[in-house]
Amino acid sequence: MSDPLAGVAELDLDRQERRGYAEAVYCAGKTPEQVGAIARVVAGRPDVKTLFTRAGEDHAAAVLEALPDASWDPVARIVAWPAAEPEGTGGLVLVLAAGTSDLPVAREAYLTARHLGRPAELVVDVGVAGLHRILGKLDLLRSARAIVVAAGMDGALPSVVAGLVRAPVVAVPTSVGYGAAFGGVAALLTMLNACAPGVSVVNIDNGYGAGHLAAQIAEPTPAAAPQQGTGA
Amino acid sequence: MSDPLAGVAELDLDRQERRGYAEAVYCAGKTPEQVGAIARVVAGRPDVKTLFTRAGEDHAAAVLEALPDASWDPVARIVAWPAAEPEGTGGLVLVLAAGTSDLPVAREAYLTARHLGRPAELVVDVGVAGLHRILGKLDLLRSARAIVVAAGMDGALPSVVAGLVRAPVVAVPTSVGYGAAFGGVAALLTMLNACAPGVSVVNIDNGYGAGHLAAQIAEPTPAAAPQQGTGA
Amino acid sequence: MSDPLAGVAELDLDRQERRGYAEAVYCAGKTPEQVGAIARVVAGRPDVKTLFTRAGEDHAAAVLEALPDASWDPVARIVAWPAAEPEGTGGLVLVLAAGTSDLPVAREAYLTARHLGRPAELVVDVGVAGLHRILGKLDLLRSARAIVVAAGMDGALPSVVAGLVRAPVVAVPTSVGYGAAFGGVAALLTMLNACAPGVSVVNIDNGYGAGHLAAQIAEPTPAAAPQQGTGA
Amino acid sequence: MSDPLAGVAELDLDRQERRGYAEAVYCAGKTPEQVGAIARVVAGRPDVKTLFTRAGEDHAAAVLEALPDASWDPVARIVAWPAAEPEGTGGLVLVLAAGTSDLPVAREAYLTARHLGRPAELVVDVGVAGLHRILGKLDLLRSARAIVVAAGMDGALPSVVAGLVRAPVVAVPTSVGYGAAFGGVAALLTMLNACAPGVSVVNIDNGYGAGHLAAQIAEPTPAAAPQQGTGA
Amino acid sequence: MSDPLAGVAELDLDRQERRGYAEAVYCAGKTPEQVGAIARVVAGRPDVKTLFTRAGEDHAAAVLEALPDASWDPVARIVAWPAAEPEGTGGLVLVLAAGTSDLPVAREAYLTARHLGRPAELVVDVGVAGLHRILGKLDLLRSARAIVVAAGMDGALPSVVAGLVRAPVVAVPTSVGYGAAFGGVAALLTMLNACAPGVSVVNIDNGYGAGHLAAQIAEPTPAAAPQQGTGA
Amino acid sequence: MSDPLAGVAELDLDRQERRGYAEAVYCAGKTPEQVGAIARVVAGRPDVKTLFTRAGEDHAAAVLEALPDASWDPVARIVAWPAAEPEGTGGLVLVLAAGTSDLPVAREAYLTARHLGRPAELVVDVGVAGLHRILGKLDLLRSARAIVVAAGMDGALPSVVAGLVRAPVVAVPTSVGYGAAFGGVAALLTMLNACAPGVSVVNIDNGYGAGHLAAQIAEPTPAAAPQQGTGA
Amino acid sequence: MSDPLAGVAELDLDRQERRGYAEAVYCAGKTPEQVGAIARVVAGRPDVKTLFTRAGEDHAAAVLEALPDASWDPVARIVAWPAAEPEGTGGLVLVLAAGTSDLPVAREAYLTARHLGRPAELVVDVGVAGLHRILGKLDLLRSARAIVVAAGMDGALPSVVAGLVRAPVVAVPTSVGYGAAFGGVAALLTMLNACAPGVSVVNIDNGYGAGHLAAQIAEPTPAAAPQQGTGA
Amino acid sequence: MSDPLAGVAELDLDRQERRGYAEAVYCAGKTPEQVGAIARVVAGRPDVKTLFTRAGEDHAAAVLEALPDASWDPVARIVAWPAAEPEGTGGLVLVLAAGTSDLPVAREAYLTARHLGRPAELVVDVGVAGLHRILGKLDLLRSARAIVVAAGMDGALPSVVAGLVRAPVVAVPTSVGYGAAFGGVAALLTMLNACAPGVSVVNIDNGYGAGHLAAQIAEPTPAAAPQQGTGA
Repeated sequence: MSDPLAGVAELDLDRQERRGYAEAVYCAGKTPEQVGAIARVVAGRPDVKTLFTRAGEDHAAAVLEALPDASWDPVARIVAWPAAEPEGTGGLVLVLAAGTSDLPVAREAYLTARHLGRPAELVVDVGVAGLHRILGKLDLLRSARAIVVAAGMDGALPSVVAGLVRAPVVAVPTSVGYGAAFGGVAALLTMLNACAPGVSVVNIDNGYGAGHLAAQIAEPTPAAAPQQGTGA
Repeated sequence: MSDPLAGVAELDLDRQERRGYAEAVYCAGKTPEQVGAIARVVAGRPDVKTLFTRAGEDHAAAVLEALPDASWDPVARIVAWPAAEPEGTGGLVLVLAAGTSDLPVAREAYLTARHLGRPAELVVDVGVAGLHRILGKLDLLRSARAIVVAAGMDGALPSVVAGLVRAPVVAVPTSVGYGAAFGGVAALLTMLNACAPGVSVVNIDNGYGAGHLAAQIAEPTPAAAPQQGTGA
Repeated sequence: MSDPLAGVAELDLDRQERRGYAEAVYCAGKTPEQVGAIARVVAGRPDVKTLFTRAGEDHAAAVLEALPDASWDPVARIVAWPAAEPEGTGGLVLVLAAGTSDLPVAREAYLTARHLGRPAELVVDVGVAGLHRILGKLDLLRSARAIVVAAGMDGALPSVVAGLVRAPVVAVPTSVGYGAAFGGVAALLTMLNACAPGVSVVNIDNGYGAGHLAAQIAEPTPAAAPQQGTGA
Repeated sequence: MSDPLAGVAELDLDRQERRGYAEAVYCAGKTPEQVGAIARVVAGRPDVKTLFTRAGEDHAAAVLEALPDASWDPVARIVAWPAAEPEGTGGLVLVLAAGTSDLPVAREAYLTARHLGRPAELVVDVGVAGLHRILGKLDLLRSARAIVVAAGMDGALPSVVAGLVRAPVVAVPTSVGYGAAFGGVAALLTMLNACAPGVSVVNIDNGYGAGHLAAQIAEPTPAAAPQQGTGA
Repeated sequence: MSDPLAGVAELDLDRQERRGYAEAVYCAGKTPEQVGAIARVVAGRPDVKTLFTRAGEDHAAAVLEALPDASWDPVARIVAWPAAEPEGTGGLVLVLAAGTSDLPVAREAYLTARHLGRPAELVVDVGVAGLHRILGKLDLLRSARAIVVAAGMDGALPSVVAGLVRAPVVAVPTSVGYGAAFGGVAALLTMLNACAPGVSVVNIDNGYGAGHLAAQIAEPTPAAAPQQGTGA
Repeated sequence: MSDPLAGVAELDLDRQERRGYAEAVYCAGKTPEQVGAIARVVAGRPDVKTLFTRAGEDHAAAVLEALPDASWDPVARIVAWPAAEPEGTGGLVLVLAAGTSDLPVAREAYLTARHLGRPAELVVDVGVAGLHRILGKLDLLRSARAIVVAAGMDGALPSVVAGLVRAPVVAVPTSVGYGAAFGGVAALLTMLNACAPGVSVVNIDNGYGAGHLAAQIAEPTPAAAPQQGTGA
Repeated sequence: MSDPLAGVAELDLDRQERRGYAEAVYCAGKTPEQVGAIARVVAGRPDVKTLFTRAGEDHAAAVLEALPDASWDPVARIVAWPAAEPEGTGGLVLVLAAGTSDLPVAREAYLTARHLGRPAELVVDVGVAGLHRILGKLDLLRSARAIVVAAGMDGALPSVVAGLVRAPVVAVPTSVGYGAAFGGVAALLTMLNACAPGVSVVNIDNGYGAGHLAAQIAEPTPAAAPQQGTGA
Repeated sequence: MSDPLAGVAELDLDRQERRGYAEAVYCAGKTPEQVGAIARVVAGRPDVKTLFTRAGEDHAAAVLEALPDASWDPVARIVAWPAAEPEGTGGLVLVLAAGTSDLPVAREAYLTARHLGRPAELVVDVGVAGLHRILGKLDLLRSARAIVVAAGMDGALPSVVAGLVRAPVVAVPTSVGYGAAFGGVAALLTMLNACAPGVSVVNIDNGYGAGHLAAQIAEPTPAAAPQQGTGA
């Protein structure tokens, strides 16, 4: 039988087995038709959790036609299939958004972590211009196994958070800001130069990557047990 | 009695208690005299593990005069005090260097992880130009709880590694390369754009930060138990 | 008789004789009217194969009105006249696309190579995040005389491919990606810094240039025989 | 009589009258011989306070030969003549250095403010990685009329300080840091994007400019009284 | 009662008390719905002056629905509530626009200074290409306590102005220009490198920040009197 | 027996078999001791042609101690072992240097091509400021199967050459120039944007890469015959 | 009587007297209303030649309503008033466009030179990819007193032209190109690094500036006769 | 007889005839030996005025050994042969240096113009921070046929000068400054964006190019008389 995705895509459906995490389909660079074709292939593999990321309204419609019981979050731009989040296991993933405008990215990280099986919480508008807001949440901060911090403009929040906690901080710069924010470059550089150790950085606006990484960090049991692998 | 560091530095000796990890003194921007003065203060707190990073020969001499039983690694440019590495607990931290020239940065990460209390291993010269080298180490890769990948030039190794394992990858770009490597910027951008999820990035040549983060990720027990904090 | 393109363009219709390859008209910076005027001139020279590149729908319509039997490929944005591809001679040109989103650029390279007279094949979605995909095609890779690799985001595929084969690799970065991909700059830098020798790079999204170069590399007979030239 | 600086410099000795502040001679781009010649001219105008900035050892020696009673501060690289600081009038200028490595720039700002006639204080090593350090100085912060904040690396301190006080913050990025600090560019961008209003920025490592501006802000009486000017 | 802004924003309504200045809501990154929700909360605090900045027509409509007696300035894109400007106290804030195209930014600075309680004046089209225009206003320039200079293109005006006056100059680069103006970067760099001391810079197009800072500089009485603070 | 390079390097001695070309050791990032250790291992494999590139005087001395019959070219900074160039087969590789200052890079390309088995010629100082120089060599240009063009400053020569010939042009930007040459970036961009098709680019100053690629392009027989491979 | 442009613009109507050239109104950053208001003021000064540059359709309509006998060139985006070009005096201004896409910028330069009173010619599509096109026009090139060269992509044409002639070359980079052309930056850098002396550069796409400068260079008589000036 | 420069350089000794100006040898990228060899060839052509630019002490010694009666200016780093400046003809070339640190570049321009046969004057330290300095020289400014302006830091002087005169301004940015001056990039951008028409720009620190261009602009008679050319 011919491959319905020939010349378009080659899904990595073994990723869950090989890497232990859901397959993801990045929609932004694809046409709704291409995304729909992929969704129809995915429909045959209900054992493989799939996240469609950066899904605009057209992408979402194409996926939902093929997978009617999937769930779409328009703020985070994620379509998840199956829709249900697994029971959260492992440590807490805490997602912070410095400002309201960082919400879409933060929510993408939050939903990703939950769909990958972690308990997660989301806190918004705790930027450093009003320090009392973040200082008032110290107990929550210190209960997390991994913290995602989404911030644009000066991107200063991860430095401050990392200085207060023991857990690793995954910083995700957002393109929020103007002028010399350069679409997130200013925040990116701030985060790469965080004066507190314990901060690492993902790409600008990459909420999915941040949530994925946090989920890996907060895994319930050490990953040290050797996996059985048969090659690449 | 007057503060011997007045007008020069204010050590954060409570960091071990607050954050759970050793204090670090970044030497590169300081004179040997300033570093020596800090070392003399540190001498009074043998309970606080201290790492002097980016320590050149002059810095090391100044520290060793104040702390004769510290250990200096000239490749990693780290002076550790006390010299002994703690018994490794938690998951394995695996450090990969794409090429021989990446060794100083990789070794800085490796020693940091060990001094922060993790079991760690270091593997050198497994760049993607000869894939058989990394593919021949799949079992080791898959036994790690956190993987640090140091690479310069094209910085392509983290993408390849992340596609093969379940553990988080901490990518550290190195300034190795010339021309359009732009002192590590090319590798940095490659890593920020890694096509496999599970990669986060620290600053160029920041082996210390990478090792610190990997040690946090590979902590023996979830950090989720609330810590007692008395403020910031 | 007056020049119908006076003050607009001066076609290089001797290029096929001087350089041995088809004339190309880059449409992106021209109005449909200008492109149509050029097509009408081209119509008088059926001996000169002409490719209209970066042809949007309006450009294509203007060309097809003047050259009704030309062929338009909307994905590759190429209008070819005459429509027929010559019989392929010389070595195989293999075009790889790292992801589905790189398809337009890869297809532009593929069609260019075919219209310039080479046998060519196109393989999609073989990025390094799932190495088994490219490793499963080693025989095909090693049968090519020239390999075009189109990749965005981390741009890591050319390094990996060049390490596996004997043939030259023409790397074409694509503007696929977001944030610190900087519209293809990240992939461009990765490729310029490829740690495996045998990689050269063309401009971002320049599928035409990549296909043209690959066709030159894979020429059926060495170009060493001196050509008769009468000047520049 | 011929001009001893002909073809070399044209001093702006009326600046004190026109602008109300001392003349400054930027030494970095000049030879010691040129600086010495300028100092000999200055010697004839004891009524004009002159600061020689960015004065290395050779520059300082050349100035001190002509002006033996000037004072040189090797950390701040300032030679002041006359040596005495005027009595401080106006509001307090507070200078903060995020880390020890920022001290030269901070001290340049501090001495400039004092020589321009303001009361000033200097506080070192209060970076955001240990928030308790800056929070412990709230009363001092809130007693200042102008605050200079010197910081390298992530440059996050001005955002935090501005959120806590009523006074304007003059942020001066330093070239402290490595890799993606890009010689102070990261800190510069952070500061330009400070999420708290009330922050403005001067050039990287420009302690003199920061101190000068702070002195202007903290002037004892409003400058609104029209000055008598005779032209540009 | 539930928080109407839960998961969206956390207003900093104590800012006026803590910092002495109005609260500001940056609209550009928010939906009209979010801005409207914030306005409804603000409606309960008539004691807190609030400025909605970067308010497009949709944002303004949403605010005006909740706060019908607010005032909207479409050029400056500011909605102020309460609408009335306080009586101006303190020194004069003078706002200069180098060209007509810099007017929106300059007006944003001007209105901000007035709403924060300063007397202010706005002068347009005094760029350095015709020096007689700025030289003809020397008396006005010298009567100001703080001067905001908005300029795009070469951004040369702040250097010239600072050389003529005693007051601090707050330079705000605008994105006016084309080609190598790079959206305001050229002007930004010019201003950071102003050869006259007394110039500091805010972000590109940040008229609000410039006006806020100028208002702080021109405060009626020195801020040196210690404020009563209860923490961060 | 223990690996003499353990923890330092892992040579890719199968590269000649796998890729058909000599092994290369990039010296610039290595200590002379490391390079010497590698040379001692290489000494046991006289069947493997090895090039030590970017070899300064110290590197060369270390290699020559282990491989006394190797040859060192101080201009090209290449140590070749065995010293003899193979008999040239395949098409002509022509290397052009725009100016005298581009000679080291051009010579590195020239020697690389010869050591990899191609006939090669080197022509110096044929930049576009005096077009008659390049136009006087049209016959030579048109007899080449691959042309390497090394140029700094404006990097305009590859565009001109490619417009005159049928063979592929490998452009190598050099760091020659000052000011806005930005260490070769200007030439790099010029070459990436060459208005004539048939130009591809390698990294700044990468003469080795350019010569390697040209040797691959000018291979004596099409590489299309399937190679026997045993894996990656 | 009130100033109809109060708070909007301050025309420099003395520029013709002071500098000897027409007034220009840059429309791009202004609203059609603002441009119309300026045109109504201009209408009162028929002695002052005025060029409205970067005039889109809306701007042109607004100007033509106030100045019905002005002339609009939609390709060059110039509205000239009075419409008539003066009799050409002085040396020939020759404007070259490397490609068809550079025509708008080249034509803006050409019309500017003519309206400023020079004889001028425009030649299109003489890029270096086909050298015979420019070499065929040597006599014309050598008859010019000033040559404007507009080129995008690699921007190589000015280097080639300057090597052939005695006259100064004014190079104007255009934003034509894609990918690593970076909106004209590549061409700009090429031109700044031209290996032939005699090239200077204006801003990207600044045809007006190039034409203005060329007109100044080609003035009929040396400008050395001292002008009567009454100040700035 | 063999070519003494074979493989090193190919002098363009016909440039004086073809272009009308002296040959120049750029020394910076060449060894003293190479420069000396060139000087020995030049010695045979006393009819060709030759300038050795960017000549350090070693370069100068090598040239003077071959051409003992040449003249070396260590500030401008120019060796001229023959030493005598021709009688100045044509219009006045005026060279302005904004500050003392710009002197080497300004002097390189000044000497170049004189050796190319123009009357020239040099004025130093007339930056815009003290406008009275440049305004005091209006008569001199307005007597020039071409004005070179060398400036670093903010690079604002050319904008101001161009607004005051009728003659073309050749702006040459210098690498003077620190921090965000970026080695002259800030000044370069300022100059490219000059708000007054009549400014064009050469490369950073390119005093030779600026002086050459100014000499071309100020030629004694229009160059419009057709030259006899025999080809490229």
